Amino acid sequence: MSTSRCWYFNKMPKKDIEADTLVMREEARPTIEDGQILLRSIYLSMDATNRLWLSDMDLYMDPIRPGEAMKGFQLAEVVESRNPDFPVGSLAAGLAPWAEYSVSDGTGFSIMLRIEGLELAEAFGVLAIAGPTALVGLMEVGRPKKGDVVVVTAAAGAVGMLVGQIAKIHGCTTIGIAGGAEKCGWLKNEFGYDYAIDYKNENVIERLREYAPQGVDLQFENVGGEMLDAGLTVMKDFGTVVICGLISTYNNTASDKIPGPYMFRNVIMRRLRIEGFVILDYLDKYPQYQEKLAGWMLQGKLKARMHVVPGVENCVDALKMLYTSANTGKVLVKMGEEPA
Amino acid sequence: MSTSRCWYFNKMPKKDIEADTLVMREEARPTIEDGQILLRSIYLSMDATNRLWLSDMDLYMDPIRPGEAMKGFQLAEVVESRNPDFPVGSLAAGLAPWAEYSVSDGTGFSIMLRIEGLELAEAFGVLAIAGPTALVGLMEVGRPKKGDVVVVTAAAGAVGMLVGQIAKIHGCTTIGIAGGAEKCGWLKNEFGYDYAIDYKNENVIERLREYAPQGVDLQFENVGGEMLDAGLTVMKDFGTVVICGLISTYNNTASDKIPGPYMFRNVIMRRLRIEGFVILDYLDKYPQYQEKLAGWMLQGKLKARMHVVPGVENCVDALKMLYTSANTGKVLVKMGEEPA
Repeated sequence: MSTSRCWYFNKMPKKDIEADTLVMREEARPTIEDGQILLRSIYLSMDATNRLWLSDMDLYMDPIRPGEAMKGFQLAEVVESRNPDFPVGSLAAGLAPWAEYSVSDGTGFSIMLRIEGLELAEAFGVLAIAGPTALVGLMEVGRPKKGDVVVVTAAAGAVGMLVGQIAKIHGCTTIGIAGGAEKCGWLKNEFGYDYAIDYKNENVIERLREYAPQGVDLQFENVGGEMLDAGLTVMKDFGTVVICGLISTYNNTASDKIPGPYMFRNVIMRRLRIEGFVILDYLDKYPQYQEKLAGWMLQGKLKARMHVVPGVENCVDALKMLYTSANTGKVLVKMGEEPA
Repeated sequence: MSTSRCWYFNKMPKKDIEADTLVMREEARPTIEDGQILLRSIYLSMDATNRLWLSDMDLYMDPIRPGEAMKGFQLAEVVESRNPDFPVGSLAAGLAPWAEYSVSDGTGFSIMLRIEGLELAEAFGVLAIAGPTALVGLMEVGRPKKGDVVVVTAAAGAVGMLVGQIAKIHGCTTIGIAGGAEKCGWLKNEFGYDYAIDYKNENVIERLREYAPQGVDLQFENVGGEMLDAGLTVMKDFGTVVICGLISTYNNTASDKIPGPYMFRNVIMRRLRIEGFVILDYLDKYPQYQEKLAGWMLQGKLKARMHVVPGVENCVDALKMLYTSANTGKVLVKMGEEPA
């Protein structure tokens, strides 16, 4: 096999990703020059924020432009190398094209060591993006105290499932919000949430008042919109809202007028702090986050559920799952076989 | 004279304060019991937040209910006393009814010392509410660094005029936003703002981009609505928005759906911190704030413009000025003569 399939950004979507938003092409496998490596993709991480890169919004990074390869966070095997930092056979993780094979000079990539006792998919799925995001957002941005009531939206999602467990490790009471009885079951039975709220079938504000009669200290926000307003409605004085994601607003263009939270006035009334973060700002501290997260995983304190979608041809469908809540865990596309 | 005129909350307004929202009644001057003091009102502070106390919104304190006396922050002379903490002839400042005479047990009142070199109106106008609000909001909540670009909305208002000067004292570049050429003139000529933007006649976002080509580090928000959105649009990465007031939204009831800022997504895109505060939470540190503020005033580093409205009968008109921008400085109602 001397070809490689790769997805390209074709046309900016108006709302949801459309059939012609991204197109897959089969190409000749690229060749490397001095200083470069050839990467064979194994797992591709699907993250809600990927959708934003296809919009015309003013982002936290350069967007992808029509005609360019679509990108995502990837675990790959170095199959050819003219760069001594990345020997052949090593595993590298970083931002790369949605392609079976790609070339890099190593910028933005780091070697991923295999951790005994952890499956490769799970290690990548947690340690690459979702785990550091959960840890940084909760502990460095949110800074909960022991005994605090922590609410997590999209709590069965890749980040949310981890936030609740990390909050429990630190002595918080946790309330997870997710859609449907099955996901709410995972929240309590797999991810150790104290309470689960099914936003599709329950009145979120009423349930929050029942489970947190003194109010909520911290909301870890992945969704925005009504979920954020529910949190703002029940926050305690001096509470904190960590804005990790606003997935309910990502299927928009810059010219769409998307109202901010209707309960914004509670920023004053309750003296709240609302703070956003982007995990890419914390890459220099990744080794220490990953060590902590891997330790908890090996101790059985941090569990994750993976949803592995097979095949490069299914990348777009995999990304769309995040927007229809069709996924049942952290979504990874299996781009190629794991090394023996 | 043995009577006292007092304003009562009569009927909740739908939007703007109406003719029957507050009613004034002439009553017998109240008498005191053991532990109490009789206060003769001298200056009454008009603050935008007073309007909120007449709404059905969930507030940072108990609202005033129809039938109760309207309240405000007041400077008064103790004219009778059965409380040794407040001797006859002393000046006391605290939350009191909008009345010429009122009774208190001293709770929430503090003795106000006369400061040589400061007019009584100016000392009260700055030191009672606006000055501590500006100082706490900017320095304790906002925490700007030297060289930061600080934007202040309602910059010619009671708090805004002080924020710009305190920011300059700390080495910041200041941009004030106010309505009309006259107020913008004060910003630059009296209050030392580096730049002034007339929101009634200029494109705020364009001017902000011109005066802060690298972006804004800190917005001190008194207004909300379009002003807040302008700030969110031009904030630097890791910028801060201090929410001191949202006066553009106060003429509402709890059931009105008031959209939060349309550029809320920039909380993530620019990794912003938005934080609200209420000065009543900081009463225990008032003496040190007042010492610092009075020192700057005596050194000529902190100037304020007072707008004194004469007579208890004009209280409602004085409060409404804050909502029509008709005031030309910190609004005080002169309720009675200053002591000799």
